[in-house]
Amino acid sequence: METAPMKDMQAEPDFRRIDIDKVGVKDISYPIVVLDKANEFQHTIAMVNMYVDLPHQFKGTHMSRFVEILNEYRGEVTIKNFPDILKEMKSRFEAGTAHLEVYFPYFIEKAAPVSKLKGLMEYKCKYTGSLSDELDIQIEVRVPVSTLCPCSKEISDRGAHNQRGEVKVAVRFDDFIWIEEIIETVEKSASSPVYSLLKRVDEKFVTEQAYDNPKFVEDIVRDVAVNIGGLKAIKWFRVEVENWESIHNHSAYAYVEKHV
Amino acid sequence: METAPMKDMQAEPDFRRIDIDKVGVKDISYPIVVLDKANEFQHTIAMVNMYVDLPHQFKGTHMSRFVEILNEYRGEVTIKNFPDILKEMKSRFEAGTAHLEVYFPYFIEKAAPVSKLKGLMEYKCKYTGSLSDELDIQIEVRVPVSTLCPCSKEISDRGAHNQRGEVKVAVRFDDFIWIEEIIETVEKSASSPVYSLLKRVDEKFVTEQAYDNPKFVEDIVRDVAVNIGGLKAIKWFRVEVENWESIHNHSAYAYVEKHV
Amino acid sequence: METAPMKDMQAEPDFRRIDIDKVGVKDISYPIVVLDKANEFQHTIAMVNMYVDLPHQFKGTHMSRFVEILNEYRGEVTIKNFPDILKEMKSRFEAGTAHLEVYFPYFIEKAAPVSKLKGLMEYKCKYTGSLSDELDIQIEVRVPVSTLCPCSKEISDRGAHNQRGEVKVAVRFDDFIWIEEIIETVEKSASSPVYSLLKRVDEKFVTEQAYDNPKFVEDIVRDVAVNIGGLKAIKWFRVEVENWESIHNHSAYAYVEKHV
Amino acid sequence: METAPMKDMQAEPDFRRIDIDKVGVKDISYPIVVLDKANEFQHTIAMVNMYVDLPHQFKGTHMSRFVEILNEYRGEVTIKNFPDILKEMKSRFEAGTAHLEVYFPYFIEKAAPVSKLKGLMEYKCKYTGSLSDELDIQIEVRVPVSTLCPCSKEISDRGAHNQRGEVKVAVRFDDFIWIEEIIETVEKSASSPVYSLLKRVDEKFVTEQAYDNPKFVEDIVRDVAVNIGGLKAIKWFRVEVENWESIHNHSAYAYVEKHV
Repeated sequence: METAPMKDMQAEPDFRRIDIDKVGVKDISYPIVVLDKANEFQHTIAMVNMYVDLPHQFKGTHMSRFVEILNEYRGEVTIKNFPDILKEMKSRFEAGTAHLEVYFPYFIEKAAPVSKLKGLMEYKCKYTGSLSDELDIQIEVRVPVSTLCPCSKEISDRGAHNQRGEVKVAVRFDDFIWIEEIIETVEKSASSPVYSLLKRVDEKFVTEQAYDNPKFVEDIVRDVAVNIGGLKAIKWFRVEVENWESIHNHSAYAYVEKHV
Repeated sequence: METAPMKDMQAEPDFRRIDIDKVGVKDISYPIVVLDKANEFQHTIAMVNMYVDLPHQFKGTHMSRFVEILNEYRGEVTIKNFPDILKEMKSRFEAGTAHLEVYFPYFIEKAAPVSKLKGLMEYKCKYTGSLSDELDIQIEVRVPVSTLCPCSKEISDRGAHNQRGEVKVAVRFDDFIWIEEIIETVEKSASSPVYSLLKRVDEKFVTEQAYDNPKFVEDIVRDVAVNIGGLKAIKWFRVEVENWESIHNHSAYAYVEKHV
Repeated sequence: METAPMKDMQAEPDFRRIDIDKVGVKDISYPIVVLDKANEFQHTIAMVNMYVDLPHQFKGTHMSRFVEILNEYRGEVTIKNFPDILKEMKSRFEAGTAHLEVYFPYFIEKAAPVSKLKGLMEYKCKYTGSLSDELDIQIEVRVPVSTLCPCSKEISDRGAHNQRGEVKVAVRFDDFIWIEEIIETVEKSASSPVYSLLKRVDEKFVTEQAYDNPKFVEDIVRDVAVNIGGLKAIKWFRVEVENWESIHNHSAYAYVEKHV
Repeated sequence: METAPMKDMQAEPDFRRIDIDKVGVKDISYPIVVLDKANEFQHTIAMVNMYVDLPHQFKGTHMSRFVEILNEYRGEVTIKNFPDILKEMKSRFEAGTAHLEVYFPYFIEKAAPVSKLKGLMEYKCKYTGSLSDELDIQIEVRVPVSTLCPCSKEISDRGAHNQRGEVKVAVRFDDFIWIEEIIETVEKSASSPVYSLLKRVDEKFVTEQAYDNPKFVEDIVRDVAVNIGGLKAIKWFRVEVENWESIHNHSAYAYVEKHV
């Protein structure tokens, strides 16, 4: 075993005849800057996965190059330069396909419905991209919502069970679309949005709003499907709704996927 | 470097003069059998941590012995033989103190309030024990509940926000106490219990029951404290309540600890 | 609002013209019994998801029926009666497609390589099934392994970094296949298996075995692909390998999917 | 039920005679700015818990005030203004004790040992503070490390099992101390630090460094205890070490707590 020049094990040939679909680094925690409709840019912390394909004749991948590429784009990982990062990956690894997944929390200042006091709401987002001959990019957003059960309202003499739920929407798009637009579209499809800061006048408002908008998990998945599908920029979507039922110890769930 | 006899590195002396409070194995997934009030025994899957102290003059611990002890008690890890396992650990390691933590899901058949249809409810439990000169054992149970906000009910013309919450109770006790008793005591202190199986007649019942029993997180922590503290067997308790607010994206939380 | 007869809200018509791909219950914790090669049956605790499709003209699903079906099969949820449960779901909901997902820990008694002492190893498993006109069933198993880096061994004068990794294999199959066969096939494809109980003679053995079998994440995904693909019963597989690198704070990852 | 003036339910009297130790908001995700030794300030995302005590005669807490206080300090939540936030909480709630917990990832640029290439390492941190008559503040840092087993090295003819581990250190202090100092102290106490970016020359270096520094979990907890205890600013510490064993499917664990 020698020191210099070190043998490049990864560049050795391989004879098992198995193409690897994806190989790379996973769960890199990394501070990034993303686009923000209200403030131009927003600092956040991402979890990053980066993969390329590896044809059967090559033994290994030079994993450190993924981190080097990420370091070059540290200042900005946005939906706008996502294709550039994928191109850089494809070229540096001489790969047929490059894959990039970036999970991050995104914050929006949101006013309470009556007092108009502002608070920060967190929405968990994900950019997913792959580039082979074609580029394929998805934006995914998780929107917490409040849902109130129509059956419970109908059959009960008073009250109706309600709970926090989460709507997870993934979209493919023809034109640029803000995360903010997706969130607004989802929030208006729920029994009521949720907020980070509510005073008593607001609490009265959202309680009555939810009571006046009872929706099954089926209603929410459909209303989000109709409303997201109605956005001009969208060409494909997947909607998942999960209600953390307040009367059960499990969730109600609904799923729709659709080309528009 | 030789094979036989192998050097016992762990038995070497140590000169750093640092007593180790706890050393051992953590996160062992293990099938166990626990006591069950209705069915005598119940099969479940535990996550197990086992530690002993290590005086400053010893270099290391023989970790495989923890697993060997666990294997001996595979058939049964109950609150009744918990002291025996601790004694066995203390003796086998010649330790001053032995610690054992066992997390497991526990299932109880629970009838819906009106239809009386039965379903299985899961309650996450934990036994914690340590044995030095004295034996100290705690039972902890997490009980999912439904909570309805008194303020929201009071100020709203219709409806009231409610949500799933979790009451976590830990107890020290003078006499044997069933997990079932702790759970019943918690469930009667909530706005309403939660269930795994509810038909429409039951859904109406629990909706109205919760609406008629509005409770802040503060009310629930106090009612559980009063009711658990009133059980004859209990000499100490800790109660934590967390509400996954349906109008917010964060939780409301309350905590009380008390010797009785 | 009246009590009797209660209105069946879910049975109402819907006019949004959105077919729902999946609707049902998610994250039901449930004790089940599965097949065990060595002991015939094994008690375990599952996390269960149950969904059906819902054509656009129907408003909602009767969620409690999922739990009722699950209760009927409480005694046994195996790969053998999985089709029966799916048929029952499809029929009871008059659905076009039924989906069932069951996650559970599975335990196998495994002897240490030299001392032959026995310990229990946990393997996280998942059965996934859907039934429309055709039946589609997958078994997924997560196998913890030890991996040793060939590059680190080659370039270093002494030692080589190694770490715990996890191989996740999903298979579709023509004939019945035991979970045990999948696990054995994966374990022989790693640098070394991992164990729950090892004495010093065993530790020496597995240390040297791993050092003599250096494998990149790329090697393991390929060796598992070759070996799983070579099993007669298998008609499709997906292999993912993740190494929790001991020299990094992130993972190395590789992925292969293939029809055989 | 009336709208104006709305009844202040929380201000009502309570007669259960149970003082609540902690009540407040939990798991608020929030972007904050913290002190950074190299760059003055660092943007990160925190998870925040805020509690006060509630004497037995009061029914409830005005939860929205916690979020209002947090909004006021949005620009900066550092170890330097932590006491101010606690004072503000204590005063606004007229509380006997205020509690604040802030979890956040912290990033440090770290050069590889030979190539000197720079990469970003993430360290999970936590500030915990409480203020009654006295102020009590802790800093907690989780440092990923590489650990190599002395027993495995001693008894094996070649190689030695090693793995990623995590050292969690909490400290109370008399003087200001940088997170960076705690991290450096921990990293020099491990078999080797871990890095985000390593080239082949670095990989050789860290492999041999770890092989030359074999340490049991007991050794690491003691070396960290000696080294952290030796820092002038520290008056109390708690050290936990967890090794995700590469030869087992569970962890080795050690714990020391000490006043200096």
